[in-house]
Amino acid sequence: MHSTRAIIISIGNELTGGQTVDTNSAYLAEQLGMLGIDTLYHVTVGDDRDATARAITAAAAEAELVLVTGGLGPTADDLTRYALADAMGGVELVEDTASLADLEAFFQRRGRTMVPANRIQIMFPAGTRAIPNACGTAPGIAAGIGNARVYVMPGVPREMRAMFAEHIAPDLPAGRASIIRRIIHTFGTGESDIGERIADLMVRDANPLVGTTVSAGLVSVRVTSHATNTAEAERIAGVTIAEISTRLGELVVGQGDQAMPAAVGELLRHRGQTIATAESCTGGLIGEMVTDVSGSSEYYLGGIISYANSVKRDLLGVGEDILAANGAVSEPVARAMAVGCRAKFGTDWAISITGIAGPTGGTPEKPVGLVYTAIAGDDQTDVHRHILPGDRPTVRRRAALAALNHLRLRLRQHH
Amino acid sequence: MHSTRAIIISIGNELTGGQTVDTNSAYLAEQLGMLGIDTLYHVTVGDDRDATARAITAAAAEAELVLVTGGLGPTADDLTRYALADAMGGVELVEDTASLADLEAFFQRRGRTMVPANRIQIMFPAGTRAIPNACGTAPGIAAGIGNARVYVMPGVPREMRAMFAEHIAPDLPAGRASIIRRIIHTFGTGESDIGERIADLMVRDANPLVGTTVSAGLVSVRVTSHATNTAEAERIAGVTIAEISTRLGELVVGQGDQAMPAAVGELLRHRGQTIATAESCTGGLIGEMVTDVSGSSEYYLGGIISYANSVKRDLLGVGEDILAANGAVSEPVARAMAVGCRAKFGTDWAISITGIAGPTGGTPEKPVGLVYTAIAGDDQTDVHRHILPGDRPTVRRRAALAALNHLRLRLRQHH
Repeated sequence: MHSTRAIIISIGNELTGGQTVDTNSAYLAEQLGMLGIDTLYHVTVGDDRDATARAITAAAAEAELVLVTGGLGPTADDLTRYALADAMGGVELVEDTASLADLEAFFQRRGRTMVPANRIQIMFPAGTRAIPNACGTAPGIAAGIGNARVYVMPGVPREMRAMFAEHIAPDLPAGRASIIRRIIHTFGTGESDIGERIADLMVRDANPLVGTTVSAGLVSVRVTSHATNTAEAERIAGVTIAEISTRLGELVVGQGDQAMPAAVGELLRHRGQTIATAESCTGGLIGEMVTDVSGSSEYYLGGIISYANSVKRDLLGVGEDILAANGAVSEPVARAMAVGCRAKFGTDWAISITGIAGPTGGTPEKPVGLVYTAIAGDDQTDVHRHILPGDRPTVRRRAALAALNHLRLRLRQHH
Repeated sequence: MHSTRAIIISIGNELTGGQTVDTNSAYLAEQLGMLGIDTLYHVTVGDDRDATARAITAAAAEAELVLVTGGLGPTADDLTRYALADAMGGVELVEDTASLADLEAFFQRRGRTMVPANRIQIMFPAGTRAIPNACGTAPGIAAGIGNARVYVMPGVPREMRAMFAEHIAPDLPAGRASIIRRIIHTFGTGESDIGERIADLMVRDANPLVGTTVSAGLVSVRVTSHATNTAEAERIAGVTIAEISTRLGELVVGQGDQAMPAAVGELLRHRGQTIATAESCTGGLIGEMVTDVSGSSEYYLGGIISYANSVKRDLLGVGEDILAANGAVSEPVARAMAVGCRAKFGTDWAISITGIAGPTGGTPEKPVGLVYTAIAGDDQTDVHRHILPGDRPTVRRRAALAALNHLRLRLRQHH
């Protein structure tokens, strides 16, 4: 007797051809891991009926659970329903009237007309069951092949994730072990430095297993524990998380979904303070990140995107003389933007950013990647100079994170 | 006789378990495509000697080229060299003295001591060839199995990419076919509608092959052509792209990297006009999207993020009476925001957005997803009402795209 094993199949020419990176398989494998289900392998095939049918047949012979994503759309290159019917021994497609009603309701809600092509999306191999899709037009399909349960989901990540969480995960046999995964986000040093500080915790086959990942400018530490019950798995993970948090100190931004903007928001909310933003090279990115957190209206009043120098002057009150003497990308301009923004909005704090995101606009004195960030508060205004590596989006993202991190550290000091 | 076909194998428990998204396979598939080599499938297996050997054996039997990444490191879970030896019929591992010298030099350059564990990295299955690794400690391996050429590379993306570009790509048989891939982005209708309008072009095994993908709010049409030379492949793709463009008309936003913000920017630049933004629920997202395009300072002056009502009133001049009578999420407020923004910045155009992104804040009259977008120009101000589906980030992104699309259509009219 062993626990349930899974195989994940992704379908699409845009995946086999490399135009799109497959993120669905990693998502599903991680979700299965949390349910205690091991994934044997992932396979990605093109929009090809025979190749898809062969992949499903092989997977159903080897694993108890087969998860398939993609190829359920309304167009001629969507062939997964036919391939599944082939893998089931050549059953027919039959129309599901309940799904038809759902589909008509979906179009009605959006005020759109259902075109005949959508009709294929309510055709299912005989003997299978439709899985409702709350976010799109393609229902999923639940089938059985031999001893394997096969679930087919749309390839659009948002639709797939909602369908898996709502309709498939609750349906799965629980694995025998409880697995807990936690993530701790850090900012301010490199992955190798983080790795050295916790090297003794990153041992192979340890419980919990500790690993590091770099993504979107943060270094994140993953802690995965397993035990026969959830409480024990939580306890094991908790001990290691406490140790990591102590060692990394103020490098730790937050856990789980609480990355930088949420961590800053929590500190502001706790103190009952407000903030506004003044952005040049980031063009609204900090505002976007701050307001991505639901409830941010409690502490975020708004901002000024001062892309042109005239806007820095007219809306933020940056003196023409300061701009002329130092240029827009300079310490005095970053300072004046933050001070002017705080005054304009009447907030407790203001963040400003001015820099050269590239790829053009750099000079020997002011290269691409040069960014000044400033934090204005009631007692002082701090300005930081950065030389940030990477392409335009990377420089912008790193600049926004650095500015938010400076505010986070200021808010912690005042704690 | 057919052109070279490839299969890509990725190895690692962090991939099968979903802690890491596999980006290597997409990179390699895209590189192969540019060389005229088609990828049949990708498969991802864990750190398991037998599973890896089976995957290599199956791939070598089906394709002329097999690319393998991962499992070449110095630790006990790195088993790819053993699996390759198994797949070659059980050959022995032999030490490569040239690679030993390279490895010692690598450690010396970094002032690090070579540990005994690294010694495994210079052991190769008999009859294979070592591939130098300029960026790390693990050389790659070139082997032959039957009619297939097999290349094994490290899993670290930076090392893999350098090794592929420098040592493997130049070594590959040029595919006999030249493959051209083009992408056309559309906005304004669903995938099923796009699919119906071009259904006759989306024929299986056609040349060019036409498919559709939905991502980040746009429906994109992919056109892939092949021919014996690049000029002919370009011509074949061009005919179909022209036909698709004609049929889809103003739904077409742009090609390749030219998605919405770049398309709007191109129209503004062409007309020598300027724009500013006034954002409430999107919190700076439109500004961020517009300025993600390098050179956007030619037409984008800046914006006001009016998250709080006081900012709508004080900085955009939205009347207190209008706010009180209609609420912040309303047609009159969207209109007043756009008109006020255009006046404040002195631009030719202004975009405004006000809405309820959720998940909280909705009411029966004003549900989550209700968004008003407005475009103010010299002759008139248009306001559109939307009910957008999805979670908070999705509503915000769709709102920003819808607003930019309205501006795009206005700019086209004036052409």
